[in-house]
Amino acid sequence: MNQLTNLSPADAPTDYVQATAQHEQDAKDLTRILPASRKVYIQGSRSDIQVPFREIALTDTPTGLGGEHNPPVMVYDTSGVYTDPNIQIDLNQGLPSVRQTWIEERQDTDVLSGLTSTFGQERLKDIRTAEIRFAHIQNPRRAKTGKNVTQMHYAKQGIITPEMEYIAIRENQRQREGVDMRQHAGQNFGAKNLTEITPEFVRQEVAEGRAIIPANINHPECEPMIIGRNFLVKINANIGNSALGSSIDEEVAKMTWATRWGADTIMDLSTGKNIHETREWIIRNSPVPIGTVPIYQALEKVNGVAEDLNWEIFKDTLIEQAEQGVDYFTIHAGVLLRYVPMTANRLTGIVSRGGSIMAQWCLAHHQENFLYTHFDEICEIMKAYDVSFSLGDGLRPGCIQDANDEAQFSELKTLGELTHRAWEHDVQVMIEGPGHVPMHMVKENMDLQLEVCKEAPFYTLGPLTTDIAPGYDHITSAIGAAMIGWYGTAMLCYVTPKEHLGLPNKKDVKDGIITYKIAAHAADLAKGHPGAQARDNALSKARFEFRWEDQFNLALDPDTARSMHDETMPKEAHKSAHFCSMCGPKFCSMKITQNVRDYAQNLSHAASSTSEDSEVEAGLKAMKTAYHENGQKLYQKV
Amino acid sequence: MNQLTNLSPADAPTDYVQATAQHEQDAKDLTRILPASRKVYIQGSRSDIQVPFREIALTDTPTGLGGEHNPPVMVYDTSGVYTDPNIQIDLNQGLPSVRQTWIEERQDTDVLSGLTSTFGQERLKDIRTAEIRFAHIQNPRRAKTGKNVTQMHYAKQGIITPEMEYIAIRENQRQREGVDMRQHAGQNFGAKNLTEITPEFVRQEVAEGRAIIPANINHPECEPMIIGRNFLVKINANIGNSALGSSIDEEVAKMTWATRWGADTIMDLSTGKNIHETREWIIRNSPVPIGTVPIYQALEKVNGVAEDLNWEIFKDTLIEQAEQGVDYFTIHAGVLLRYVPMTANRLTGIVSRGGSIMAQWCLAHHQENFLYTHFDEICEIMKAYDVSFSLGDGLRPGCIQDANDEAQFSELKTLGELTHRAWEHDVQVMIEGPGHVPMHMVKENMDLQLEVCKEAPFYTLGPLTTDIAPGYDHITSAIGAAMIGWYGTAMLCYVTPKEHLGLPNKKDVKDGIITYKIAAHAADLAKGHPGAQARDNALSKARFEFRWEDQFNLALDPDTARSMHDETMPKEAHKSAHFCSMCGPKFCSMKITQNVRDYAQNLSHAASSTSEDSEVEAGLKAMKTAYHENGQKLYQKV
Repeated sequence: MNQLTNLSPADAPTDYVQATAQHEQDAKDLTRILPASRKVYIQGSRSDIQVPFREIALTDTPTGLGGEHNPPVMVYDTSGVYTDPNIQIDLNQGLPSVRQTWIEERQDTDVLSGLTSTFGQERLKDIRTAEIRFAHIQNPRRAKTGKNVTQMHYAKQGIITPEMEYIAIRENQRQREGVDMRQHAGQNFGAKNLTEITPEFVRQEVAEGRAIIPANINHPECEPMIIGRNFLVKINANIGNSALGSSIDEEVAKMTWATRWGADTIMDLSTGKNIHETREWIIRNSPVPIGTVPIYQALEKVNGVAEDLNWEIFKDTLIEQAEQGVDYFTIHAGVLLRYVPMTANRLTGIVSRGGSIMAQWCLAHHQENFLYTHFDEICEIMKAYDVSFSLGDGLRPGCIQDANDEAQFSELKTLGELTHRAWEHDVQVMIEGPGHVPMHMVKENMDLQLEVCKEAPFYTLGPLTTDIAPGYDHITSAIGAAMIGWYGTAMLCYVTPKEHLGLPNKKDVKDGIITYKIAAHAADLAKGHPGAQARDNALSKARFEFRWEDQFNLALDPDTARSMHDETMPKEAHKSAHFCSMCGPKFCSMKITQNVRDYAQNLSHAASSTSEDSEVEAGLKAMKTAYHENGQKLYQKV
Repeated sequence: MNQLTNLSPADAPTDYVQATAQHEQDAKDLTRILPASRKVYIQGSRSDIQVPFREIALTDTPTGLGGEHNPPVMVYDTSGVYTDPNIQIDLNQGLPSVRQTWIEERQDTDVLSGLTSTFGQERLKDIRTAEIRFAHIQNPRRAKTGKNVTQMHYAKQGIITPEMEYIAIRENQRQREGVDMRQHAGQNFGAKNLTEITPEFVRQEVAEGRAIIPANINHPECEPMIIGRNFLVKINANIGNSALGSSIDEEVAKMTWATRWGADTIMDLSTGKNIHETREWIIRNSPVPIGTVPIYQALEKVNGVAEDLNWEIFKDTLIEQAEQGVDYFTIHAGVLLRYVPMTANRLTGIVSRGGSIMAQWCLAHHQENFLYTHFDEICEIMKAYDVSFSLGDGLRPGCIQDANDEAQFSELKTLGELTHRAWEHDVQVMIEGPGHVPMHMVKENMDLQLEVCKEAPFYTLGPLTTDIAPGYDHITSAIGAAMIGWYGTAMLCYVTPKEHLGLPNKKDVKDGIITYKIAAHAADLAKGHPGAQARDNALSKARFEFRWEDQFNLALDPDTARSMHDETMPKEAHKSAHFCSMCGPKFCSMKITQNVRDYAQNLSHAASSTSEDSEVEAGLKAMKTAYHENGQKLYQKV
């Protein structure tokens, strides 16, 4: 168990010792369970709907502060069975299937006799890739002729799939009795006001295109999740090697690392060698949907010369990846020939890789984007595997100055048109968004997207709210991401500190994830998503009651919270100390607040002997009355 | 030069070796000049108005991309003469004076024969403090009897002080010819739309209370700056030791470190021993205004027992600190007795230290807050030294659940009342704000503050937009800070990653500063502050043109940007490579964009022979016409 793949010598980092140490750490990270946490499953209407949560156990309130029991808090869990001690993990075998039975039961798919893409077949035969190949590649599944296997197709027919029920349970974030569920009414800009998410609601949202369930029939290992503005805001983490470095092992380790910290989906943006094999390893071991940008691999196949791309190569790439199990494809079909020159006067031109590939192709051939002209054929492929569209914003702004310009918004309108065309095929669609946008221009993006794409889920990269902080673009973008998430964006693509500078390592990936979990959660709170504030309430109560360990364990990143506290107060005893690390033992504001509370309660007892439940309130009212009666001097000397 | 003070054995950190290494690093950091930067001064109407800027030199655009000259970019500079190689730095002597002559010329102050506070006198005589005492304490200055020496007082009389002219030059961020000054029209929610900041405008804003110039006559070393919603958004960094650790040296090093990275003001929140001596060292060496919370020291004087506080001790503390040169005082005069019980049902009660001290005092004595009842006497002291108020929000929410509640907003309304009372004394005022607030409730804070405090500058701590990320609260709060800065907050108090967990070290201080520079700058961009986007434009142009060094040098933190880039591509040659670190040498979107641009220009040349300036645009128009004429197939095969 916990075996990582064997590196081929060619893939091994130059420093072998360092690589070995990294491997050992990766293996430890793979299955480590977060402190005070355990995996729990909530069962749905059938025994094979087992929805995972992480349950964080809390300690009791100290006796001096009331001594009450604090029930455990349940949190959404993207980490898969890696954090289930009852499951044997073996990366060489891949994850157990979650959806296989559900897919089989629908009887609308065939298991093919082998891979049908030319490239997939070639790679399978290629002796040079044998050493790095995932050993248990199964024959892919495809829709029977004339069948459409998308979740949207089922939804439109009124079918509630097990995936939908699973998601309803997952989104509800059920809490035990006693958890403080108070929260502020949110402002959700026209999204639905919900109290509970039902399977039927999930079905409706998918049927109407407001949400997608990225779930390729060839990725049965994936734990169903949903992306839509009426659900929890999700985050995506990009991984992927490039010509400059990183191995298959590193990418698999980044994927499991990212999902451990909360990535809801992973995009594999590899552009280096062995893209195909890397992807197989990632998909087979991923509990979350995997997205790709197929044009990247297509470009590799034509040796990086954009002009040499053509529909046949691209189509083969789509089939190759769909049969591996990619759950959503970024397709830059909105980069129309006539929009390309609109970018000429930009400060930073076209910064999307996919966008520039297609722009280059269009200009070189003096032809319309072949992704646009072949869009219906793409839909035909997508619906045979249930791959969702992520319609790429190839003309997104690459700097503040270029935000919200004609090129960007022209493309967005075309993405709206393509959304409708995809929906005619019952293919699920989300729309990619910017980029670099100053704060006051963020909402315009959301509003226009909602209008022209008819509420198809928006999936944005940040946006970055200033250009002047390379090295900190996880932060410049988290500001924009939190805001646009609040306004209605369904998924936020993370940005790491390395954005614009280099390839993220594990630390960068984690920094990006935690930062985006913050942005997404801040958005959930602002939208008033049901139950979103329960974790904030539990953590703040722990903080107030000096329950340091509970505070750490409830944090998005317990390890960092604990180690920062230990830097100032390393002793174990300090973690139960009734003072906090900022003020020291002599003076503590929280301690004084306890006195205030005791005082108010005493006042209350003295002023009122009405019902137990409302005694504090009654006391406060009595005090206010007394205050006014006594010429605004409430507290008379006794 | 660069000598740091000698530690007394009691102050020395336990690990002497580590401390020595830290000292050596601190000494190096003290005067290091950021790469490609030089200190330049712009002279005002008189030769002693020398306004500092940091000028960042840029390289030319590579020949292949046009070869144009890129003029240097001037940025606001808070680092003081530490980064002026022509000035000898000696922390034992303190900084040279900037404002001494201006203060003397006004002839409204006397130099006293010695310190007038009881405590100040005692400490000066105390043989035990001799070793840690700043050696060149000068006799303080105070307003002549009947005089008022506040900048507001001068402003109301129509006097433009040298401080005001200095600030006008500083805020304009003058740029050399050729700098790209394009920017988006902002949305500023009723703030002034400016194109240039004049000395007269500065005067008006101060006279009307919409801005403050924190500038104690006993802190002549301070380089004048302004805090107000119609100026650049400022940031404050908190430093200060506690009973648990850190020495005078460390605090001075944190101050110079914080101003080096962009702190506009520093608050010394020390609560440990030797508060008085630490503060003297900090003020004498600080080029930015220093704020304090005098009640912290007053509490030390009564051995940490809040009930034992009284007006006499507090008054003596105000005078003690005013004579040292503190530029603004946080005064929690709005924590009224009748508001205290409003916090009893809160999830986290009173979390402000000052707020809880006063609440404890009020309850213990059954009396109204003595800061409120003695408010006019406090004003009399403030105006004799020109100390500005920072009216403390002692009842700010300590968690999401407690945001915008009755206690918080009741206190805010009282702060509005006190603002008017201070203005009657011509004492400058800003108002402190929260705290923990979900995004959708942030604007309500700003709107109410503007209304009840009549646009007196708002100075907020974040706000944090979620409670669930201890260890990352610089980020949870930067989201709220950027938003509230956009809405009109004049100064943002930074939050470090250690918030809620421990005392910040140098790394934490820098992380907090850079994060808050991002938030403040994002707010400037969104407000449309004149010239704010120039640095973004310059950096994005450098990025687009693969001028890596320029990109690093224009970054808020050049060191981190450079080192992150070097992690992926360490070789020097890569820094001039025409591909970026994400994509590798074979494929690069920016390279393709260059092709698009060349193409559009060729098209333009072909389609139009009109004026040189608008040829690209004319070309685009011609192309659009052609596109429509040719049945929406713009690019016909040749």
